Amino acid sequence: MFEESESDPRLTDADRKQLEATLRVQLLLEQYRHLSVKDESLVIFVSGIDGAGKTETINLLNEWMDPRHIHTVAFPDPSADELLFPRVRRLWMSLPPKGSIGIIYGAGYVQLIEQALKKKPDHDKLASDILYLKRLEANLAANGVRLLKLWFHLSQGAQRTRTKTLLANPSTAWQVAKADKKVYKNFDKLRDAGARIIEATDTPYAPWIIIPSADPNLRAVRTAQAVLQALKRPSAKVPPLHNPGAPILAKTHKTALDQINYALTLEKDVYEVELLGLQNRLAQLVRSEKFKHRSLALVFEGNDAAGKGGTIRRVTRAIDARQYSVMAVIAPTKEEQQRPYLWRFWQNIPRHGRVAIFDRSWYGRVLVERVEKLIKKSAWTRAYGEINDFEQHLIDHGTIVLKFWLAVSSDEQLKRFREREQSPFKQFKMTDEDWRNRSKSKAYAVATRDMFDHTDTLVAPWHVLSANDKKYARIEVLKIIVHALESALNSTNNSSHNS
Amino acid sequence: MFEESESDPRLTDADRKQLEATLRVQLLLEQYRHLSVKDESLVIFVSGIDGAGKTETINLLNEWMDPRHIHTVAFPDPSADELLFPRVRRLWMSLPPKGSIGIIYGAGYVQLIEQALKKKPDHDKLASDILYLKRLEANLAANGVRLLKLWFHLSQGAQRTRTKTLLANPSTAWQVAKADKKVYKNFDKLRDAGARIIEATDTPYAPWIIIPSADPNLRAVRTAQAVLQALKRPSAKVPPLHNPGAPILAKTHKTALDQINYALTLEKDVYEVELLGLQNRLAQLVRSEKFKHRSLALVFEGNDAAGKGGTIRRVTRAIDARQYSVMAVIAPTKEEQQRPYLWRFWQNIPRHGRVAIFDRSWYGRVLVERVEKLIKKSAWTRAYGEINDFEQHLIDHGTIVLKFWLAVSSDEQLKRFREREQSPFKQFKMTDEDWRNRSKSKAYAVATRDMFDHTDTLVAPWHVLSANDKKYARIEVLKIIVHALESALNSTNNSSHNS
Repeated sequence: MFEESESDPRLTDADRKQLEATLRVQLLLEQYRHLSVKDESLVIFVSGIDGAGKTETINLLNEWMDPRHIHTVAFPDPSADELLFPRVRRLWMSLPPKGSIGIIYGAGYVQLIEQALKKKPDHDKLASDILYLKRLEANLAANGVRLLKLWFHLSQGAQRTRTKTLLANPSTAWQVAKADKKVYKNFDKLRDAGARIIEATDTPYAPWIIIPSADPNLRAVRTAQAVLQALKRPSAKVPPLHNPGAPILAKTHKTALDQINYALTLEKDVYEVELLGLQNRLAQLVRSEKFKHRSLALVFEGNDAAGKGGTIRRVTRAIDARQYSVMAVIAPTKEEQQRPYLWRFWQNIPRHGRVAIFDRSWYGRVLVERVEKLIKKSAWTRAYGEINDFEQHLIDHGTIVLKFWLAVSSDEQLKRFREREQSPFKQFKMTDEDWRNRSKSKAYAVATRDMFDHTDTLVAPWHVLSANDKKYARIEVLKIIVHALESALNSTNNSSHNS
Repeated sequence: MFEESESDPRLTDADRKQLEATLRVQLLLEQYRHLSVKDESLVIFVSGIDGAGKTETINLLNEWMDPRHIHTVAFPDPSADELLFPRVRRLWMSLPPKGSIGIIYGAGYVQLIEQALKKKPDHDKLASDILYLKRLEANLAANGVRLLKLWFHLSQGAQRTRTKTLLANPSTAWQVAKADKKVYKNFDKLRDAGARIIEATDTPYAPWIIIPSADPNLRAVRTAQAVLQALKRPSAKVPPLHNPGAPILAKTHKTALDQINYALTLEKDVYEVELLGLQNRLAQLVRSEKFKHRSLALVFEGNDAAGKGGTIRRVTRAIDARQYSVMAVIAPTKEEQQRPYLWRFWQNIPRHGRVAIFDRSWYGRVLVERVEKLIKKSAWTRAYGEINDFEQHLIDHGTIVLKFWLAVSSDEQLKRFREREQSPFKQFKMTDEDWRNRSKSKAYAVATRDMFDHTDTLVAPWHVLSANDKKYARIEVLKIIVHALESALNSTNNSSHNS
C-alpha cells in the first residue's frame, strides 16, 4: 500500500509548474461547478504520518481554490463543555453547507490509530469503532456529503530528514510539532497501524488516497489531483446498512397500534394527586448529583391533536427553565436543509445534566417525509439504521432516550379537530394540513408500524400510549420518565458514560 | 413604583375567565400579525422578586400563544466554555429569529441587582454597567428587536405566604427555590435595589412593566396585557447614542488615506528572513501559557485586490490549525439576516487561547452597506457607536483587537485587476462587482474616512498600510501583531480579563 510513497518519488520544478497551471484552473472550475450543483458538499479528512507536511498542503489548497467556500477545521483536545456531549457531535457540527468544501484534520482516525498502536489493543473495541466510523461515513455519503480521505505518507528516512532540516533553523523549528519528533522511533508500528485502518475503512463512497509527501512538488500535485478526482466522481451509491444498527425488540408491532386500549381513563382527583407527586419525584431526580453525569432526551410523536404540547408542559413544570430545552420540530431552515437531516438534531441533543424535549423529532424522516413523498424510498429505508445509530451514540454517552407515541382514536381526533376549529384561541392549531394528514391516516398508520418494526430497539424502545384521556396519558408519561430515571441513576455502572 | 403591586390586588375567577378569553384571541392574532411582518422579533426579559410565580406565568404564555415560535431561555451559571467568552455573548446568541418571540430569564439584570445589593456597592461600576445595558438595549431595539421587560412584584407578606403554602405540601415544596426563601429577610433591600435599577433603565424602546403577582389571576392577565401591548406598539424610535462608545484618537483621519506612502517596498531577501523570524515569534506567543487567558481578533479591511488573503495566509502559517479560525465575510445567510447584524460576528469571536481572523468584518456596515445604500443613513451613523461598544466588550474580556486597512493606489489596483482577468486561476477573484466598486471609489473613500474618524479608538486603533508592495505589507502586519501580543502578554495587569 505504501510502496510508492516510501520510495519518496519526486517531481521537478518545471513539471510541477506545468501541472499546477492546469490543475488550478480545473480545481476552480470544478469547485464552482460543484457549488452550482448545490446538493452536495465535499468533506476531506486529513490524516497520515506526522511531519509529512499536511498543513502546508492544506494552505495551498486554500490558495488554489476560492477560500470563501472552504471551511478548514481541526479538533483540539475536547473542551470541558464538549466532553458533556458525545465526541462525534463535533464532527457533525463541523459539516459545511452544501456547495462548500470542508477540510477536517484527523476526525475519528486519530483515536483509531492511537488504539491500534496500544501494546495490548482491545481488538473488539477497535473492530466496533471501525464499524462505527464506516456506518457514520455511509450515513454522511448517503445524505449529500461527498467524502475523501487523504493519508500523507513518506519513508522513515525522509520524515527524519524533513524534521531535522526544519529543526536546524531557529526560524522554522517551531513548525515541528512534538508528535513529529516521535515518529522516527515508532515508524514501523505507525505505518502498520495506518495500513490496517486504511484497509478496513477504504470504501467506494469514502476512499483513501495516499499522498507521497517527501517532495513538496509531488505532494502538492497529488493532493490537487485527488481533490479534483473527488469533485468529479459521480455521486456515491451507498449500499444499505445490513445491520439495523441496534438490536430490535422481539415483539412484533404489526398490531401495536390496534392493541391500544383507548378506554383507559383517570379520575380528576387521582390525576391531580399523582401529577404533583410525580412532578415532585422528577424535580428531585433531575436536580440530583448523579444526573450531572447523565442527560435525558424525550421524544414526543403521535397523532395530530393527541396532546403532545399539554403533556410536555406537565413535564417541564417540574424542571428549572435553565435545565431543559424544547425543540418544536417545524420545517427545516435553509441552514439546516444544507446539511444531512440529522444535523439539526445533533445540534439540539442534551449535554450532561440537561433535558432536551423534542416535540416531534428525527422520526419525521420516516413519517411525514415518507408519506408526503418528500424523499426517495431509498432515503427513508436507510433512515431506520441511521436513526438507530444516532440513538445508540446518545445512549453510549449516558443519555437516557425515551420515545413516546401518543395515540388518539380516529373519533376522538375528529372531535378535537372540531373543537379546535370552534375555539377562538385554538384555531391556530388547525390548518388544512391537519385535515389532509387525517385523510392520509392509512398511509401514516403503515409508516408508523414500519417505524415501530425497525426502531423499537432494546436500548430505546417505543412507549405507545392511549391519549384519548389526556390525564391518563400525562400520568403514564411522567411515570415512565420517573421510573427510567430512577433505574438509570441507581445503576452503579456509570463508568462507560464518558465516551 | 410598587404601590399597586404591594397592595396585592386580586381578580375574581369570573373576571379572569372573561378577560382571558379575549386576551388569548388577541395575543394569537398579534403573534401571527407580528410573524407576518417578519422584520422584527420580540424579546421579553423576565425579572422580579423571587417566588412571585415567574415560571408559572411564562408557562402560561407558551400555552396561550403558538409555542413553536416562542423561544424561552434561562442562563444557568456560565459553563467553563462560556467563561472563555464575554458574558454578554450568551444573550446575543439567544436572540430569536425575526418573527419570533424570545423569553429570557434574568438577562443582565440579575447581576445588576446583586451588585446594587452589596454592602458597599461600587457605584462607578454600577453606573457603568447600567450604561452598558442601556446601550445594548438601544442597539438591539434599533436593529429590529422589540424589547419588553417584566418585573414580577408582590408584598413582603404575600411572598412569604406564597412560599410557605408551597413548602407546606411535600408535592409542591420542590417549586420553592433557595432564593425564594431568602427574600423575606431582605425584602426592603431587594425592593429598593429593584426600584433604582428599573428607574435607571426604563426607556421608551425597552420599557419596564411591573406585574402585580400575589394573585395568579391578575398576574396572568396583566402579563398577557403587557405582551399584547408590546406586540402592538409602533416600532421604537431609538435616539442616537450621544457618546461614541469609546474615546476616539485625537489625530484626524481626514488625510490618513492621502498620506499613505505607496513607494514603500521590501527586498525579497530581507522579506524572507523577516517573515520566518516574525512567524517564529508569533508561533511562540500564541503557544505561550499567558495567551491561554487572552485571545486575538484580527480585522482585515482595505481596497479590493489589496492582498488580504495572501497576508492572512502568512499569519495563519505560524498558528496551529486547531487554534485559529478565518471568517470570510460574504453576504449574510437567511439565519443571519434574521438577527441584528452584529449577531454573526458575536458568533465568531475568539474564545480565550484562540485567534479569530476576519477577512472583511463588521465594518461592512459602514462601508459597503452604506455606499450601496443597503441600509438607511440612521443605521450606519448609529453603527459607529455600536461597533465601538462591540470592540470594547471584546477588549474588556481580554481580547486583543487589531484592525488593518490595506491600501493600494488606484494605478496598482487597476494593474492587479487586469492581471487577475488574464490569469486563468485568478479570474474567479474578479467579478463585475469589483469594477463597479472601483467606479465608486470616491464614495468608498468618503465612507472610509468617516469610519476612521469614528472608530479609530484608543483601545482599538486602525493600522493603515500601503499594500502596493505585498511583501512590505505582510511584514508590517506581522510586526504589529507580534508587538501587540508581546506588550499585552508582558503586561501584568491581566486581572480584569475574566469579566
